[in-house]
Amino acid sequence: MKRIMLVIAYDGTKYCGWQIQPNGITIEEIINRELTTLLKEPITVIGASRTDSGVHALGNVAVFDSETKIPGEKISYALNQRLPKDIVVRKSMDVPLDFHPRYCNSTKTYEYKILNTKFPIPTNRLYSHFVYYPLNLDNMIEASKYLVGEHDFKSFCSTRTQVLDTVRTIYNLNIDKQDDMISITISGNGFLYNMVRIIVGTLIKVGLGVYPPDHVCEILEKKDRTAAGPKAPAEGLMLHHIDYPDLVVHK
Amino acid sequence: MKRIMLVIAYDGTKYCGWQIQPNGITIEEIINRELTTLLKEPITVIGASRTDSGVHALGNVAVFDSETKIPGEKISYALNQRLPKDIVVRKSMDVPLDFHPRYCNSTKTYEYKILNTKFPIPTNRLYSHFVYYPLNLDNMIEASKYLVGEHDFKSFCSTRTQVLDTVRTIYNLNIDKQDDMISITISGNGFLYNMVRIIVGTLIKVGLGVYPPDHVCEILEKKDRTAAGPKAPAEGLMLHHIDYPDLVVHK
Repeated sequence: MKRIMLVIAYDGTKYCGWQIQPNGITIEEIINRELTTLLKEPITVIGASRTDSGVHALGNVAVFDSETKIPGEKISYALNQRLPKDIVVRKSMDVPLDFHPRYCNSTKTYEYKILNTKFPIPTNRLYSHFVYYPLNLDNMIEASKYLVGEHDFKSFCSTRTQVLDTVRTIYNLNIDKQDDMISITISGNGFLYNMVRIIVGTLIKVGLGVYPPDHVCEILEKKDRTAAGPKAPAEGLMLHHIDYPDLVVHK
Repeated sequence: MKRIMLVIAYDGTKYCGWQIQPNGITIEEIINRELTTLLKEPITVIGASRTDSGVHALGNVAVFDSETKIPGEKISYALNQRLPKDIVVRKSMDVPLDFHPRYCNSTKTYEYKILNTKFPIPTNRLYSHFVYYPLNLDNMIEASKYLVGEHDFKSFCSTRTQVLDTVRTIYNLNIDKQDDMISITISGNGFLYNMVRIIVGTLIKVGLGVYPPDHVCEILEKKDRTAAGPKAPAEGLMLHHIDYPDLVVHK
């Protein structure tokens, strides 16, 4: 038996997120189904990030165990033949049997896109959040600096979570703008439930002038979800990539 | 009576192009329908560019005549309330009664996007053409220079056209690349049927090494559609904007 890792990109628009659930079709479900047919053995993948309904990915990670003799790096080609066009396996490879995409040390990077202009652009509508009122980028950047580092992000976590330890470390939080598109890139050692979208929703309130930039410190201190801004919509969010610094792959 | 101009953006994915036709829903049809309901008089727009099925626009132009007392610049807001999310009127304004979006002097600018990498990216699939084999950008740029200027583009025109004069002027043809996305921007005083997509299909053949760059001169000289490359797919094409240098708008 061996363990195979997949790097998966998807357009989340029509999916009810990553994780299998009774009310709609999910990415995990489709990958399990197509791997099971391809490899002729029951396959259940373990995903790194259980992205929400409508959230996109450029590089989510999943692993599965198999008796197959197909080399790990060939799986992507065979699997892509079977997958719908909105799911693509960009890479596949053999990894050590003890590699776990959620429990191993990792850095996740998310990108959130905001189209900030007078009219929405139809060809951007599925992959960005449209904001009509002009956002003050300097204030958003100032506010973002208070979030970098190790903090208790309890205020930035949806209350539906069961996690007890809400301390996480954000390594980088970059905000820049090209034409009318604002791009917020966040990387960290882990993210609480809806954390990126609540951070973005809060930064938008700063950009609109509802909160002064340093109000973000008060929100952190309150450790209360109701202190932060709203959750920004799913369509703007993309799980960009996940790095595993301790993963050694023998080629 | 007055004449009102609209600048229209749309995601062409699910439409059978701009022009009304019996076999499917079109942009023109939806705009006529919603303007007719909004203004309570029968409205028929005249479009500048009859984009093909699946082609997108950031700034197509259309005009219509109306007895309405609503100021031209307010029409966009009222109309956008009624339009589906994949069609947005970005601007509306009163224009002189003799302004015609096709017969008046204009410069059209198109953008064609090619994703050139090993695997397609799901969130780019609707708005770019995926090419697996590496394209030689330098050769494509060299080839593109032969197309700039006034030429008989008969070889770059689908044979279904009824146009007799196939001489057009390309003012600019820029090719650049950001990460894995190649962007080809073409502006000119007019384009023949499928001309941009045949130019792109030909440049892709140059990029693949099938044609040497200067083969484009031979293609021009032959004045024969079969001499050029194939028509590149619709999803990569966007009508970016149209300029009317002689249009004077009184504000």
